[in-house]
Amino acid sequence: MTYCLAIQTGEGIVAASDSRTNAGVDNISIYKKMHIFEWPGERVLILMSAGNLATTQAVLKTLKMHLSEKKPKHSLLKAKSLYEAARYIGKLNASLQAEQREMMQGQTVNLDATFILCGQIGEQPMELYLIYPQGNCISASEESPFLQIGETKYGKPILDRVINNNIKLEDAARCALVSLDSTMRSNLSVGPPVDLVIYRANSLKVERQISLRPEMPFFQALKQSWNEGINRAYHDLPLFEWEK
Amino acid sequence: MTYCLAIQTGEGIVAASDSRTNAGVDNISIYKKMHIFEWPGERVLILMSAGNLATTQAVLKTLKMHLSEKKPKHSLLKAKSLYEAARYIGKLNASLQAEQREMMQGQTVNLDATFILCGQIGEQPMELYLIYPQGNCISASEESPFLQIGETKYGKPILDRVINNNIKLEDAARCALVSLDSTMRSNLSVGPPVDLVIYRANSLKVERQISLRPEMPFFQALKQSWNEGINRAYHDLPLFEWEK
Repeated sequence: MTYCLAIQTGEGIVAASDSRTNAGVDNISIYKKMHIFEWPGERVLILMSAGNLATTQAVLKTLKMHLSEKKPKHSLLKAKSLYEAARYIGKLNASLQAEQREMMQGQTVNLDATFILCGQIGEQPMELYLIYPQGNCISASEESPFLQIGETKYGKPILDRVINNNIKLEDAARCALVSLDSTMRSNLSVGPPVDLVIYRANSLKVERQISLRPEMPFFQALKQSWNEGINRAYHDLPLFEWEK
Repeated sequence: MTYCLAIQTGEGIVAASDSRTNAGVDNISIYKKMHIFEWPGERVLILMSAGNLATTQAVLKTLKMHLSEKKPKHSLLKAKSLYEAARYIGKLNASLQAEQREMMQGQTVNLDATFILCGQIGEQPMELYLIYPQGNCISASEESPFLQIGETKYGKPILDRVINNNIKLEDAARCALVSLDSTMRSNLSVGPPVDLVIYRANSLKVERQISLRPEMPFFQALKQSWNEGINRAYHDLPLFEWEK
């Protein structure tokens, strides 16, 4: 499985992803699920993937192949808007699955892949999209400032309670890490290292990019602090009538 | 959907359930999912259900029918152990589904129902079981002191962080309510009122039984306290290296 999320606030965008892929619990590997396409001063696109690994790799290889071509019909560098880039990736995703399905003669392997695309192009506003396996997409909004793919449920309550459009970028990043930590505790198929990127609005370059392993002091401190905070919150809960 | 959970600690058992059933978001109803069979001083069995409403009702009707018979082959009152009761409910569950499936001539409605059974019989130790749609069951243990059915993921991280075998019963009850509240926030098909039961080991009677609606002052205070605690925990998280 996989867990990736992105949060868009007034200040910028935070994106975070785990790195575990699996074909059964007896066959796990580490693959980066976060891919950054950056032309500083011109455009930054952050792409994260969940689902069938062959499909996600086929999409990424094709994106890179188009970028290396002299006159591609479409590419991440040619796209005039983030929406155009999302549609381009969506169409690639759907058509590569259709091509594979033809080879399979009715076998029922799930080829679905889902993507999160976020970033900014030139003077256009930042944007954040979730691209479905069928190729269509939805964007985040002020009321729904985060999007998730993969194993989304364990890590959602903390986002629901904390994230809003006015939150500081570093605060949103800490919240994303806690959300990932909760998911990794509950689902073995979501695992480290955790990739984290911070993009500040209108900077047109990646501001921070870190990869966190469980043994790193900062990640340890974060997990311990959260655990203590949760236990404190829980000890502060009101007494039942009959306990008073 | 549904969310029910039960926690077994050294002191006793806490069981909690939501009350919303739905056949699509345009068709929701309120049904109790917690059923208490109590013969004070002799035995207490708490049964909670998730899944197909017709199946769960068929199982419950049959359990009650057997209890009203003069000489039933099996009943919740005749079962010599909680395990025997769990097997009896499991067999009923599987056979009632099989009977229904025969009527359906290949239609693919999901008839699955899952149950949690917990309580105590006479001088035997308390026990807590999860009964699968196939009729088999698993029990809780010291290492895994809680079991959940239905929409289990949103409310699991808090249980993972807080619940252990030595926790006070009232503390476990508060934790169950927070777990239910997190689930109700994220999944519209899990809804109030919330039924909560506390059973103290070797008492052979239900100690507390309450039904909580969202507008009740205690539930309001609990939700507000938890929200504030989470936000405090989150503001206390350590700074990134570059923020110092």
